Amino acid sequence: MKKAFTLWFTGMSGAGKSTLSERVAAELRRRGKAVELLDGDEVRTNLNVGLTFSKEDRDLNVRRIAYVCHLLTRNNVWALSAAISPYREMRDHARKQIGSFIEIYVECSLEKLAERDVKGLYKKAMAGEIKNFTGVSDPYEAPVNPEIKVSSQTQTPDESFAAIMKHLEPHL
Amino acid sequence: MKKAFTLWFTGMSGAGKSTLSERVAAELRRRGKAVELLDGDEVRTNLNVGLTFSKEDRDLNVRRIAYVCHLLTRNNVWALSAAISPYREMRDHARKQIGSFIEIYVECSLEKLAERDVKGLYKKAMAGEIKNFTGVSDPYEAPVNPEIKVSSQTQTPDESFAAIMKHLEPHL
Repeated sequence: MKKAFTLWFTGMSGAGKSTLSERVAAELRRRGKAVELLDGDEVRTNLNVGLTFSKEDRDLNVRRIAYVCHLLTRNNVWALSAAISPYREMRDHARKQIGSFIEIYVECSLEKLAERDVKGLYKKAMAGEIKNFTGVSDPYEAPVNPEIKVSSQTQTPDESFAAIMKHLEPHL
Repeated sequence: MKKAFTLWFTGMSGAGKSTLSERVAAELRRRGKAVELLDGDEVRTNLNVGLTFSKEDRDLNVRRIAYVCHLLTRNNVWALSAAISPYREMRDHARKQIGSFIEIYVECSLEKLAERDVKGLYKKAMAGEIKNFTGVSDPYEAPVNPEIKVSSQTQTPDESFAAIMKHLEPHL
């Protein structure tokens, strides 16, 4: 049996991490893999309730998710994380801890994200109504050398999905 | 393949949860099972750094460990928790979330624990030097109907271990 990997999606809010990771998770399951997607309400409730958007709490958020990915992946479960994970240092911590680690940078410019602004968050952040908002009032440190880089600005969702699956193919 | 279970050890500090869970984990591995033991420094560092011994934080501790056990066990990994987990309500939450759940009560009287006092913690707790110490200045709600009950007071470690493995045998 081929070994599992952690797929670590990173990118700003609204860039498309959740949508893409859900699609990849579904495809991996279709291919017979054991898969856990760490995203959304379940993770917030069970792992990260009460955390703020301070750097310290963001780091704790990533540290916990990375640990869970580590436990899953070493037991041959594909673990997908879709947390913003804005700080390079903590993503590198996750990479080092997990080993079988594929970083997927979901890129999109701030201008484009603010233009879409599906949840109206960028407008609020730019008006100062939300503090510590990644990309506006808080840093986002883009990956220097991710295994996979996709863009929701220059690619269609289908193209991004295909690029990810092409990269994963040798591991399936 | 037979399905995996979460083995939830509960009991007061010094009752023997860690020792027993390590031995059971080793035996399950020897029998070819995928096993994760959630105990000790790794869990404290990665999942629960900064938590206190308040009821709220103890509940968070158990909630996080239960969630990780849930993810592991549904992917056919035997997950062993050796946290004190003093509150019945949170153990019942873990049971409900995980489903394939075996509660192992490691019993020992306070008198006996205080007599052993390997780490000197009971002496300090009884002198009021440690606050919120389970069994002394904080409650321990013993399981009402655990799947397995062992005692480090009336049984040898070998007997407790054998009792647990006998219960697990049909699932192996």
